[in-house]
Amino acid sequence: MTMRMDFNNMLKERIGAQGISLESIEKLNHQIAKANKAMVDKRTAGKMAWRDLPYNQKEVVTEIEQYVNEMKNEIDAFVVLGIGGSALGPMAVQQALNHPFYNELPREKRNGFPKLYVLDNVDPERLVYFFQTVDPTRCLYNVISKSGSTSETMSQFMIVQKLLEEKLGKEGAKKRIVCTTDASSGNLITIAKGEGYKYFIIPSAVGGRFSELTPVGLLPAAFCGLDIKGLLEGAAQMDALTKGEGQDDIFKNSPHMFALLHYMGMMTGKNITVVMPYADSLKFISDWFAQLWGESLGKQFDNEGNIVNVGQTPVKALGVTDQHSQVQLYAEGPYDKIVVFVGVDEYRETITIPKTYADMPSLGFLGGVTHNDLIKTEQAATEYALTKAGRMNMTLTLPKVTAQTLGQLLYFFEVATAFAGELLNIDAFDQPGVEEGKNATYAMFGRPGYEEKKAELEAAPAKDSQYII
Amino acid sequence: MTMRMDFNNMLKERIGAQGISLESIEKLNHQIAKANKAMVDKRTAGKMAWRDLPYNQKEVVTEIEQYVNEMKNEIDAFVVLGIGGSALGPMAVQQALNHPFYNELPREKRNGFPKLYVLDNVDPERLVYFFQTVDPTRCLYNVISKSGSTSETMSQFMIVQKLLEEKLGKEGAKKRIVCTTDASSGNLITIAKGEGYKYFIIPSAVGGRFSELTPVGLLPAAFCGLDIKGLLEGAAQMDALTKGEGQDDIFKNSPHMFALLHYMGMMTGKNITVVMPYADSLKFISDWFAQLWGESLGKQFDNEGNIVNVGQTPVKALGVTDQHSQVQLYAEGPYDKIVVFVGVDEYRETITIPKTYADMPSLGFLGGVTHNDLIKTEQAATEYALTKAGRMNMTLTLPKVTAQTLGQLLYFFEVATAFAGELLNIDAFDQPGVEEGKNATYAMFGRPGYEEKKAELEAAPAKDSQYII
Repeated sequence: MTMRMDFNNMLKERIGAQGISLESIEKLNHQIAKANKAMVDKRTAGKMAWRDLPYNQKEVVTEIEQYVNEMKNEIDAFVVLGIGGSALGPMAVQQALNHPFYNELPREKRNGFPKLYVLDNVDPERLVYFFQTVDPTRCLYNVISKSGSTSETMSQFMIVQKLLEEKLGKEGAKKRIVCTTDASSGNLITIAKGEGYKYFIIPSAVGGRFSELTPVGLLPAAFCGLDIKGLLEGAAQMDALTKGEGQDDIFKNSPHMFALLHYMGMMTGKNITVVMPYADSLKFISDWFAQLWGESLGKQFDNEGNIVNVGQTPVKALGVTDQHSQVQLYAEGPYDKIVVFVGVDEYRETITIPKTYADMPSLGFLGGVTHNDLIKTEQAATEYALTKAGRMNMTLTLPKVTAQTLGQLLYFFEVATAFAGELLNIDAFDQPGVEEGKNATYAMFGRPGYEEKKAELEAAPAKDSQYII
Repeated sequence: MTMRMDFNNMLKERIGAQGISLESIEKLNHQIAKANKAMVDKRTAGKMAWRDLPYNQKEVVTEIEQYVNEMKNEIDAFVVLGIGGSALGPMAVQQALNHPFYNELPREKRNGFPKLYVLDNVDPERLVYFFQTVDPTRCLYNVISKSGSTSETMSQFMIVQKLLEEKLGKEGAKKRIVCTTDASSGNLITIAKGEGYKYFIIPSAVGGRFSELTPVGLLPAAFCGLDIKGLLEGAAQMDALTKGEGQDDIFKNSPHMFALLHYMGMMTGKNITVVMPYADSLKFISDWFAQLWGESLGKQFDNEGNIVNVGQTPVKALGVTDQHSQVQLYAEGPYDKIVVFVGVDEYRETITIPKTYADMPSLGFLGGVTHNDLIKTEQAATEYALTKAGRMNMTLTLPKVTAQTLGQLLYFFEVATAFAGELLNIDAFDQPGVEEGKNATYAMFGRPGYEEKKAELEAAPAKDSQYII
């Protein structure tokens, strides 16, 4: 079972003026070849370590599975303390593969596995209300931070550690904390070793938003009973598509083609891409993709140091729900977006609408139809409407949502993002634009070493009160 | 307690080239005056019936409260069957005012009120899994559809009705269904009267996305123990700001100024607006706003019938979480967006970070700090960073999240949307762009009367299989 990509509706022959012509693709052959080469060269040079994750984690997987077996009956809930790349992946995978009301089910309906919470904010209400909801001493807290200096995650960790030590003592607390971090650099590995906490390693060459297939994502998934080997197998299957024939022929390489079409869209004013799954289970894939695509490609400088201010803003939508919210804008607003439908051939359940009000015109036709048919038909109809309105759209389809196809989809988006970075000639793997805000935060708290930034902040002009109304 | 809007960072004097000058606002005085007049004229003519909702629902509120008292102990959960405007508002209000883990709390911690579920999709997995999670006979189902012909909602209703009648009999089922719909037109009012279901009315002049302060939103909120009078009071408070001095002076009228600044942003390429609350409780306000702003302003034709393809794409973000996901793009990507921070002065809880690792530079400064200070400082730092990078941003602040301030915020966005519609010279209250998809759906199902559309669909060129990879 392999996912597929249908890009008919990105082309001029189907959507007219806003579409892409085959000739314009051909004109980019040189640039495509250059990007192909960079992908191979960087992988060979170890600069895309995330590409090897499907192959080099056999021991890690075994260790995770052993740890899950050892711990799962000791706890009521597995709690991720992480933010950004450490939270979006675990949430997306859980939503995709587990019961949508997982935490509300009795334990036996969760196959004996603990609940999952992902606490990815420092709103004070989050932790306080969380502690009112669970017995905090019956949770295993997974502190995820590659750098070990993520203020949000580390502050949560310190709060939780104190609470656990007060209630369970230092030895008891030790069994309730597991860290996922870099093998050598940063505070968290130092703390984990010093305190004697169990820990798992994020390979140092894998960046946060490309880390879902490391223990960052595998550990939470395994604690919820998910098939983490399947995820990795799926990623390997997608990787295979980018080798062999796909290596150089972009018409056989779906993630590269996805990137190329988006790149060409950006060049003609499509500064927005909407990811719109027609499946509740895939809803949070859009959130995970939003970080991957937005943070990787939103860059001020190109590789030669020219100011380019490129990037494309990812928008999250859900079919059919957002037909009643966003599709009016997509169909009639500016020609500024690409809509990526994500469909599934086979849902995991079926439900049929009874033939109750056969005589009412707007209801009669629904009788005997399944929700499976309704959602797929509405997807097709929305695709038809956007195509007729001349709007760029494409469709990714999973035969069924399984660990394997999900692994394919995650890896698909990662490869597409990296390839788009090559086409844009930018570094898809850094995030220099977040430093200013971090440094300003440090300065505002008077952290030593940030005196100069503090002086800069204090010198900033005050707000004009007449513009506060 | 009144919310406030700080728009300093929309202005040229603070962000430079991308900013708005006071002179350019002045140049629009004539257009602003025209929009002001249209707002008054339309309200007087009854074309903005949603503006009167804070004042004309005393009896409705009483009826709702009586019904809640009568029913709440009979049920475990209140279940919204609705989509779009019938779902986004109820979710936003519940998230804002109730416990974030509300459904997981034992009943006494919910003050005796039932759980709330909003089933706003026709993914077959949604209903099937829902029925595995609750006792479906112990729920009260609120079928919300103004037209009574919303396929998604009505199909869910038919499934639920059949299930209830099988398990409880026709009389028993009757007590488990309450409808919210138009007083006279459409199937749902016919069905409600025919079957003897309890029903509440959506005033016929109030459109779906402006209906949160009708029984559409008030009934679910009241069933979760929320202060619906407070919501309406807050809306009235915001309405007052748009009268008197605010009637004509846009510098005293925050929703009008919000609209004007966004309009001016759109005219200079800001085709995206990001709503980024720094509060978990306000997260779903962004979803509700996305429909309101996107569907109201995304239009092909202006009021004179010229093709204009206007609109601005709303993006949902959450602070601080999305600093680790989206802010890189906002700071360094194209100058194509406005970021609207939504802050709160006072959170409802406080939690303090212990001074555990005082000697570690990246952790020491956190010791003794509250999460309240951390989230607010990060908001200020992000605002500083975006301003320094020359990015348009503004801040809405609620003194505290209460029913009143939330009512203010909802009404603020509604007025801003209507005023933006006037500035754009489009109809902010229709949604013609969704008809094509609906009609295609009907045709695909062979609904009588859609034979022509069916023929059109069948004549559409087939997909080229070489573009499916």
